[in-house]
Amino acid sequence: MSLFPHVDELIAETIIPLSGEICPVVASPGRVASRPLLARVPQPGYDQATRDGFAVGAGGDNVVDGRRFRIDGEAPAGDIQRRVLAAGQACRIMTGGMVPDGAERVVPQEDCVVDGGMVLVSARGLARKKTFIDRQGSQVAVGELLVDQGSILQTEDSALLASCGHTEIEVYRRPRVGFFCTGSELVESAAQLVPGLKVSSNRYLLEGLIRQFLAEPVNLGVVPDTAGALDEILAKIETASLDAVISTGGMGPGKYDLLEDAFRRAGGKVVSRALAMRPGASTLVGRLGRTVFFGLPGPPGAVRTLMNELVGPALLQLQGVADYAPVTLSARLQQRVEIRTREVLQIKPGALNMTAKGLEVRLAGRLEPPTCFILFPPGCGVLEPATEVEVHLAWSPEVARLFRG
Amino acid sequence: MSLFPHVDELIAETIIPLSGEICPVVASPGRVASRPLLARVPQPGYDQATRDGFAVGAGGDNVVDGRRFRIDGEAPAGDIQRRVLAAGQACRIMTGGMVPDGAERVVPQEDCVVDGGMVLVSARGLARKKTFIDRQGSQVAVGELLVDQGSILQTEDSALLASCGHTEIEVYRRPRVGFFCTGSELVESAAQLVPGLKVSSNRYLLEGLIRQFLAEPVNLGVVPDTAGALDEILAKIETASLDAVISTGGMGPGKYDLLEDAFRRAGGKVVSRALAMRPGASTLVGRLGRTVFFGLPGPPGAVRTLMNELVGPALLQLQGVADYAPVTLSARLQQRVEIRTREVLQIKPGALNMTAKGLEVRLAGRLEPPTCFILFPPGCGVLEPATEVEVHLAWSPEVARLFRG
Repeated sequence: MSLFPHVDELIAETIIPLSGEICPVVASPGRVASRPLLARVPQPGYDQATRDGFAVGAGGDNVVDGRRFRIDGEAPAGDIQRRVLAAGQACRIMTGGMVPDGAERVVPQEDCVVDGGMVLVSARGLARKKTFIDRQGSQVAVGELLVDQGSILQTEDSALLASCGHTEIEVYRRPRVGFFCTGSELVESAAQLVPGLKVSSNRYLLEGLIRQFLAEPVNLGVVPDTAGALDEILAKIETASLDAVISTGGMGPGKYDLLEDAFRRAGGKVVSRALAMRPGASTLVGRLGRTVFFGLPGPPGAVRTLMNELVGPALLQLQGVADYAPVTLSARLQQRVEIRTREVLQIKPGALNMTAKGLEVRLAGRLEPPTCFILFPPGCGVLEPATEVEVHLAWSPEVARLFRG
Repeated sequence: MSLFPHVDELIAETIIPLSGEICPVVASPGRVASRPLLARVPQPGYDQATRDGFAVGAGGDNVVDGRRFRIDGEAPAGDIQRRVLAAGQACRIMTGGMVPDGAERVVPQEDCVVDGGMVLVSARGLARKKTFIDRQGSQVAVGELLVDQGSILQTEDSALLASCGHTEIEVYRRPRVGFFCTGSELVESAAQLVPGLKVSSNRYLLEGLIRQFLAEPVNLGVVPDTAGALDEILAKIETASLDAVISTGGMGPGKYDLLEDAFRRAGGKVVSRALAMRPGASTLVGRLGRTVFFGLPGPPGAVRTLMNELVGPALLQLQGVADYAPVTLSARLQQRVEIRTREVLQIKPGALNMTAKGLEVRLAGRLEPPTCFILFPPGCGVLEPATEVEVHLAWSPEVARLFRG
């Protein structure tokens, strides 16, 4: 299933340290359950009236068009007294109130007429198909699975967990992900711009995308293309408590592409030096101490693509997300595409369109945020419009949920 | 376009106070631009080499299979010195370096041979179609629109804004949205549970959904069904700095349904008391001072639906989002649906499935988080499987973006 089994292996080795932590249920949306979460109390927690009216059971006097009961007490919502209904008695009850033991149904007030200490309940009210009692455990039984291990929690899950007796749950720790962008021409902020320098787009892209993949970004800054500066930042990483580190740039064969050497000098273990895809020819995957390391190329388009295809899924795996792979769909090309490097898989940013004829896709514009990534398998050469292609959606928990159900 | 024009009007009157605030570009994803954002510097900001090699211009000595230039200086990335290339000169340059004035192209180093103070540039290198110069402003010109007013900013937008000279931008203030859940049987936390009481699902649902609609939730607690308790909380709202308030429960015709009276006593202005849809028969829309007020019914399914259809779009409008309406799609029913209240629009939580035949939809299970809401227009009665129905997607910025492009 995965494009990069060697990366999956690396992450699988690393996941143990990212064990659970305790999180209040109200803060749980967006976190990942680190164990199956079961109902601790049933839903409803007690036999509950779903209408205002009278709880009635056996007995009662037959009268014309109904039965007559003696009114015994009142069970408003919020009353925690357990009541027992004797034969021939009726208890006034409100929506949400606890139904007395011995009650067979709640008769809505429109089917009841109060007459002194008695209530006349119409035959219609006694014959309704609904009992207007929501029985204890009828929605959720104790021990029932609410949320599976590895699920990303939703708002609705937090409501269900709280209703079923949870105040705090165990979730995986969010990975702390350091990032730095190499390039002597780079500055971090437009305030430092002069001709000859440029703002590091990747610095902004990585911070936002690390958050989108539910991890915590730690900006390590921009780093000039010198062996000394790289040695310094890589030394810092060993002492910082980071679970993963992403770098951009410094990965090609040029004079200033120094990252790999510096990584090895720092004691880094290279797992792979190139992926069998474009972008990805110059992409280092490795480990520095217990930190997973991704050395990405410099162009922001390549960084965006590799974050969706390689790094993002790894960050999801690191925090125990079961469905970490990109959502894959089929779509029809809206344009002719000519692939030059035919030997390997090519992945290009795309823009999806939902049309009456189904899903269509085109290449994303240079400044356009992609909504998907189009896969062009090896050997595909020229693709004519209307060709079916495989696309991976730009990942977010909401989009993944929509398509995985 | 809107289901609720009277709510649109109310919100439109209220939007003025939610004016802009300053936000650092790096923190801007998920915020809403309160004015059009234009490029302040061009992209690229200077003529930039896209390869390591030599910048060459006019002149040079013709030699066998190429031309020979005198090497004059070096323009590494990050060098901010403006250079001028005289005829016959070549400047060593690195990827990202600033191309000297007078240079016509950068010749990649593989097409160059250095010979003492001279460089021999091959005819092949001089004839390449690409110049390997990314000219100033070729991607974005100064003044070009980067992000429109009313757009929800994405990570990619933050990278583009920073590259084009922005350090801080003006965004709409996030609305502060208070919420309280009425019901004497309700507690806020499972720690307080005993039979007869239940955890307020809506307390969790509202906190999470208010965040999903990019606003700031302020929990005002659970409130018993008494006139005194409601008067107290409504008095508190007037003094708190809230832009909107949502309540749940207390809205039906029952004995303990006291919200509307309390709202009027507090000086609230009722704009509407019922929507022409189910759920929504008992739904108060009004204003309390300058706070927009939504009195929702109690059942969590109704709350979830009305948050997507009524309140959520209003919260997006309040913070200036241009595309605030739910995304509408057409899908085929996977089951038979019988609608009982035929006179008005019915909206029910649904689960979408993307199949080879297109979009299909079924009713969501009772405990299943919906991915959409299915619209059953007035008069529809029984709908057979495969009937085309309109659905509104459960809103998130990422899902809206995917379908609006």
